Amino acid sequence: MRVSRRSMLAGTAAGVLAPAVGVAGTASAAGLTRQLTLYAEALPGGLYGYGLEPGKATIPGPLLEIYEGDTLEIELVNRTDQRLSIHPHGVIYDTASDGAPLNASFNKPGETRTYTWRTRTRYDAGGGFWMPGSAGYWHYHDHAMGTDHGTAGLARGLYGGLIVRKRGDLLPSRQYTVVFNEMMINHKMAPDTPVLEARLGERVEWVCIGYGSLPHTFHLHGHRWADTRTGMLRGADDNAAIVDNKNLDPGSSFGFQVLAGEGAGPGAWMYHCHVQTHSDGGMVGLFLVRNPDGSLPDGAQDAIDRFKQHGHTGHDMNPDAQTHQGGEL
Amino acid sequence: MRVSRRSMLAGTAAGVLAPAVGVAGTASAAGLTRQLTLYAEALPGGLYGYGLEPGKATIPGPLLEIYEGDTLEIELVNRTDQRLSIHPHGVIYDTASDGAPLNASFNKPGETRTYTWRTRTRYDAGGGFWMPGSAGYWHYHDHAMGTDHGTAGLARGLYGGLIVRKRGDLLPSRQYTVVFNEMMINHKMAPDTPVLEARLGERVEWVCIGYGSLPHTFHLHGHRWADTRTGMLRGADDNAAIVDNKNLDPGSSFGFQVLAGEGAGPGAWMYHCHVQTHSDGGMVGLFLVRNPDGSLPDGAQDAIDRFKQHGHTGHDMNPDAQTHQGGEL
Amino acid sequence: MRVSRRSMLAGTAAGVLAPAVGVAGTASAAGLTRQLTLYAEALPGGLYGYGLEPGKATIPGPLLEIYEGDTLEIELVNRTDQRLSIHPHGVIYDTASDGAPLNASFNKPGETRTYTWRTRTRYDAGGGFWMPGSAGYWHYHDHAMGTDHGTAGLARGLYGGLIVRKRGDLLPSRQYTVVFNEMMINHKMAPDTPVLEARLGERVEWVCIGYGSLPHTFHLHGHRWADTRTGMLRGADDNAAIVDNKNLDPGSSFGFQVLAGEGAGPGAWMYHCHVQTHSDGGMVGLFLVRNPDGSLPDGAQDAIDRFKQHGHTGHDMNPDAQTHQGGEL
Repeated sequence: MRVSRRSMLAGTAAGVLAPAVGVAGTASAAGLTRQLTLYAEALPGGLYGYGLEPGKATIPGPLLEIYEGDTLEIELVNRTDQRLSIHPHGVIYDTASDGAPLNASFNKPGETRTYTWRTRTRYDAGGGFWMPGSAGYWHYHDHAMGTDHGTAGLARGLYGGLIVRKRGDLLPSRQYTVVFNEMMINHKMAPDTPVLEARLGERVEWVCIGYGSLPHTFHLHGHRWADTRTGMLRGADDNAAIVDNKNLDPGSSFGFQVLAGEGAGPGAWMYHCHVQTHSDGGMVGLFLVRNPDGSLPDGAQDAIDRFKQHGHTGHDMNPDAQTHQGGEL
Repeated sequence: MRVSRRSMLAGTAAGVLAPAVGVAGTASAAGLTRQLTLYAEALPGGLYGYGLEPGKATIPGPLLEIYEGDTLEIELVNRTDQRLSIHPHGVIYDTASDGAPLNASFNKPGETRTYTWRTRTRYDAGGGFWMPGSAGYWHYHDHAMGTDHGTAGLARGLYGGLIVRKRGDLLPSRQYTVVFNEMMINHKMAPDTPVLEARLGERVEWVCIGYGSLPHTFHLHGHRWADTRTGMLRGADDNAAIVDNKNLDPGSSFGFQVLAGEGAGPGAWMYHCHVQTHSDGGMVGLFLVRNPDGSLPDGAQDAIDRFKQHGHTGHDMNPDAQTHQGGEL
Repeated sequence: MRVSRRSMLAGTAAGVLAPAVGVAGTASAAGLTRQLTLYAEALPGGLYGYGLEPGKATIPGPLLEIYEGDTLEIELVNRTDQRLSIHPHGVIYDTASDGAPLNASFNKPGETRTYTWRTRTRYDAGGGFWMPGSAGYWHYHDHAMGTDHGTAGLARGLYGGLIVRKRGDLLPSRQYTVVFNEMMINHKMAPDTPVLEARLGERVEWVCIGYGSLPHTFHLHGHRWADTRTGMLRGADDNAAIVDNKNLDPGSSFGFQVLAGEGAGPGAWMYHCHVQTHSDGGMVGLFLVRNPDGSLPDGAQDAIDRFKQHGHTGHDMNPDAQTHQGGEL
């Protein structure tokens, strides 16, 4: 059995859930083993990507999704002339599936190798404490190209999102993977960064991942979430912090769901790194919330047109206003 | 109806709660719309600030506070020759109130424009999950001066704190806004940074905000809080982490309440960025906890006198000791 | 009464719990005052350390551990020719025990001085809110050497871990302190960083601390924890985020327990900073999970041998693979 594939929309990390996953509460049986083939391939411009079919590698790679208790067997086909691997966060693997050269766990050039990721549910450790399960918003990445830590693989596009759900979790209508990596989002700088789309009120799931060597913070205009596993609260007394700006530093990930434009209405909403030199430098994209019928709301096309003028050092989007370039007046 | 104004103490962001807000449990009716005029003005030294009256702009701007469910209508008067705006975190706004040039949401030089911020309470999303409300320790800032991201506005002082409370939240006796922005606290370096005062045992609320392009961590000597929405726990089994040092990176904010000097006693307590080059460079202030009668405790004046000697590269506060300048021996 | 001393294993921060602390549920009486002498000493290479006996200083210093409600009286003997102090995080102290030159709280060269750290349990603040107690994974460090913020002391090794437990907390079989400080772990770079050992299934407690002026993230292969005070959850509905990569920025600390190799099996597991230039530069160590009988699992010796070849700019651990040095292909 294969995991549901995402229809990756050109130029974005957008995915639409396949029907097999789409209905909340439709839990598959516990402990399924799912098999998957990933292809690591060279892309134009010295980049690399993972894909679910030969010739279909993307940056980021496909968003993978399983339930807590399931096992994922990934056959990684290395179609490049470099050593590389796949190292996951959040799930369980033995040293052979570590993806680290330390454990001789990588694909030589041209080699095919199987990596196995297992997951578990939480369990009672006594004294009122529970050891956590595997559910979370995770990710996977190369850990072998260029250095023993996969620095070249990360710098060149070998990464993707991974969701492990608890049965009973709410399922979204749309999912997006957003990767902050050096000065790029999904290996692009504005105005080439993803324009992520939804219709007003759709439940949209964000998987946010950080890589590279720079500190980042993720900010989404007009939407907020809770600082919990799911981004939601558990009841009227849940005291978790609410956030709309969160650290997204190298190796970290988080996820959350929002109802697109809830309260705020449709429109072109920015998401960006809130480090000023980073947002000015092009770490900004658009969350385009359409009207319920799919049409563009008033003003959205103007906003898109302005966004397409975004530069890499602080562009003036509106020439009518008196302003200046860069951080200085 | 206007929100309660804070009596801004000269040189600090200190505020005393106006009586209208001051008693815990005295909830105003749900869904109030509050109106407010803010004035953006130039300040000496090339700086800018927001104020509640003409000629009274401060850095940070006034601390605004509403209850979840309320709406805040802000008439922003731009008394400068620059384009600028007001962009909030945590609350709900449509694209016209986004404060971003992307949505043509800003004040031209000399222009007056109204921004509307709405809030909501949490609600049941099904399956045991709740979508979070707006309550939190938030902030607002320019998003239009200098660059499309407001980099010049942030660098020059256009920001302030914003609190959205749940009804039933405990109310403090004193409130302080502390902004870490590049190498400054509230746009000052030691020894010109705020000396925040309270009497022993007073409930003091801190609103901490990060801006700029540098990573920071906030540390307050002698006091701790929980890593929750309020900084407090919800019961004997609440397992939230306790912190006394927390990341305060660009665009992030958090808040908490402490009882001044509880257990620790009165005295001059440091708060500072724990990045060593930043604290050495002047990112340090004092939390001066006075005796219950308002007098200075033993040793506090000496501490204040030492603080007034703080340099920007690691000053030796006590010449009796054998020590050296800077990070090196 | 003295706190239990840790048997510091040579070359690591490993400690084995003394029997006095070792059994979960064996709570000592509330409010004990424990006395301890620490010696601050010069070490080879211009470094300094704290130790429980003269001539036994280590980096990091001894891991201290008390229960919430206890008091710790530390007699600090300064056997160096520098001014220095001991400043704790998380616990309660008056200004005389602040450890900051601001409050004239430090040891002159050769001086002995007593610092008192108190702790408290959480208490009901009304309205369903509780003010937090002192329980947490904390740390202590010099706050006086070199600059008023202890920058030279931190840069030269004057720091250690501190645990304050709630009665009823689960107790581990092994404990490790891991300090990220500039480009070092426990003042070492790979391959000289700690190899932390455990047998499969042992409950291992990690105390992670950040210092210096660089941002870091801590990643442990094959193991996860919850983002709570203990790293564990409180029940089937606890919605805390699960992490396996967490910010460890200057002045911050966190802790957690794992069952060594649970699910993942025995082997040599990397722990490292996930900032790519930092891991490539040597911020990586090994968590060596042995078989239950203490023997090395298959492949572990090979992994150790590869680790011992780790360089400071991205070493190729496996010469069979086609790869390149550094972050570049």
